[in-house]
Amino acid sequence: MIPTKGYAVQDAKSDLAPWNFERRELGPHDVQFDIQFCGVCHSDLHQIKDDWGGAIYPMVPGHEIVGKVVKVGSHVKKFKVGDLAGTGCLVDSCRTCENCKEGLEQFCLKGRTDTYNALGQDGVTPTYGGYSDTIVVHEDFVLHISDKLPLAAVAPLLCAGITTYSPLRHWKVGKGHKLAVLGLGGLGHMAVKFGVAFGAEVTVLSTSANKEADARKLGAHNFIVTKDEKQLASVAGSFDFILDTVSAPHDLNLYLSLLRVNGVHICVGVPPTPYEIHAFSLIGGRRSLAGSLIGGLPETQEMLDYCAEHGIVSEIEMIDIKNVHEAYDRMTKGDVRYRFVIDMATL
Amino acid sequence: MIPTKGYAVQDAKSDLAPWNFERRELGPHDVQFDIQFCGVCHSDLHQIKDDWGGAIYPMVPGHEIVGKVVKVGSHVKKFKVGDLAGTGCLVDSCRTCENCKEGLEQFCLKGRTDTYNALGQDGVTPTYGGYSDTIVVHEDFVLHISDKLPLAAVAPLLCAGITTYSPLRHWKVGKGHKLAVLGLGGLGHMAVKFGVAFGAEVTVLSTSANKEADARKLGAHNFIVTKDEKQLASVAGSFDFILDTVSAPHDLNLYLSLLRVNGVHICVGVPPTPYEIHAFSLIGGRRSLAGSLIGGLPETQEMLDYCAEHGIVSEIEMIDIKNVHEAYDRMTKGDVRYRFVIDMATL
Repeated sequence: MIPTKGYAVQDAKSDLAPWNFERRELGPHDVQFDIQFCGVCHSDLHQIKDDWGGAIYPMVPGHEIVGKVVKVGSHVKKFKVGDLAGTGCLVDSCRTCENCKEGLEQFCLKGRTDTYNALGQDGVTPTYGGYSDTIVVHEDFVLHISDKLPLAAVAPLLCAGITTYSPLRHWKVGKGHKLAVLGLGGLGHMAVKFGVAFGAEVTVLSTSANKEADARKLGAHNFIVTKDEKQLASVAGSFDFILDTVSAPHDLNLYLSLLRVNGVHICVGVPPTPYEIHAFSLIGGRRSLAGSLIGGLPETQEMLDYCAEHGIVSEIEMIDIKNVHEAYDRMTKGDVRYRFVIDMATL
Repeated sequence: MIPTKGYAVQDAKSDLAPWNFERRELGPHDVQFDIQFCGVCHSDLHQIKDDWGGAIYPMVPGHEIVGKVVKVGSHVKKFKVGDLAGTGCLVDSCRTCENCKEGLEQFCLKGRTDTYNALGQDGVTPTYGGYSDTIVVHEDFVLHISDKLPLAAVAPLLCAGITTYSPLRHWKVGKGHKLAVLGLGGLGHMAVKFGVAFGAEVTVLSTSANKEADARKLGAHNFIVTKDEKQLASVAGSFDFILDTVSAPHDLNLYLSLLRVNGVHICVGVPPTPYEIHAFSLIGGRRSLAGSLIGGLPETQEMLDYCAEHGIVSEIEMIDIKNVHEAYDRMTKGDVRYRFVIDMATL
């Protein structure tokens, strides 16, 4: 077994603290890479607190993981020692169901294996995430990272990036489309970058008037303060797509009314309470409300390659791992522009 | 002005009763047709009771109207005296907005004119529906009816028919698709007929086990009693589309779980309370929840032509207009197979 240092919570009421554990010895198709950077996702906080139920403790969070390969299994063909490597939200799946075969491992019918707070495909071995110094992953779930991009700023692409890239690609958002991005946080700022790169006219909808300068710097063409009824009314019935990155409760009927006929409102955040949707909000313009979940492995690699080609990375604030609690507090208040990334050398 | 006999309610608390009123004299593009049959839609009941607010009294309901042309305006080119004719839910729209230009008059940006309980494009003249002996409509909002089909059974196609035809066409439902129809009533039974005609594998989801024989007679391939958890579990994650015709409150999360990845749940009914949707119900399979509203004029004509070609009509029970109250009572209990049609000769 491989001795590993990390940060873990021992139960829902404990704080993150140093914890030593073991990674498995490499099988023939495994890749081991030392973790240089790991992004801090809002879902890390939900999961360590068991907000969604079913938490597995001890829990090592982190699913925006990048680093350098230090060892490969005997049959590994895709990676060699010294390569940059990354792992996102998934470390395994059944690989045989129709969804896995289509490269939609996030929707594995037999149950995907998340990078942490999950069990391996054997149904018994817990997985531990990226707040740690090294990781062992089957090569099929390891991604190639270009050395053209600043590595720390690539980490958030593995979750915040693919979560916004995938729906924009699936719904073919691009030239001639008016795209609204709801919420300018870790996910939202990536949605703006991708929307602009794909050629859409991008409008940021935000409760915070003071994010306008940032939004425009990220490339957004328009900015609407959602608390201002006049500003909202000025974009009624105008958008082809809304990408909704908000995880706090909010009234979707209001936003659905901003869509034109055939418009699609795509949710990638998970508020704690159900949405209340009036049937007329959908029927009154043949509108759709959809959801999207990260992306499969082929699309995640495609996204990383696209980012390398177009110079797209996340806006980050680097932190020492000992300051992760403060980062969580600031993240809860929305005080991060736009993703915390842990420098794992500080472990 | 043209003296007209009809049935109207005088306010939200009154019953339907005979009422004499006037239709406008024909303008150059108007068609007058004598009404032979008018379908009874569940929305008639909602509107006479002002359930949706904003009711205009006196109100003559009815928007599934068929009959024979008796007079045409000087410039009318599309109809001549003696032609069969029909009018559905719309009698006018602005004709100039982008939606009208695309033949989506139901989404007219300046406000469509419904066949009753609405104001004309002048903003002051109320419209009166098909529970009456004659009607005057601009030729652009009058539809051609084939003489190949039994006329009374065509009437419900003007609302129940187009309401189900349109979404199935928009989402290109057909061969290779598994379609579930939720609710086997006036709308649902048409959805089954169209779904089968378009080549989909059709499953009826119903609370009433005793509708199975009917469902199969209509062409459905499968039947699931939704109160039976085992039967429901057997179709989890299996449908490409669900066409939801239910107007009573129901838990959409349950039905969304029956969709496969990328599945679409399409609502055409309007429950009195909002849907409560958990974000995970959508995100967990890139599912969509959509709404659809009747259809535009070009598509309504297309639907009627398709029905004539394929011998599709509604299953109806003919009633005398004096029995309309009893019909409403039975409709409220779901005791109609599958649409009441008023024989207007009984007026």
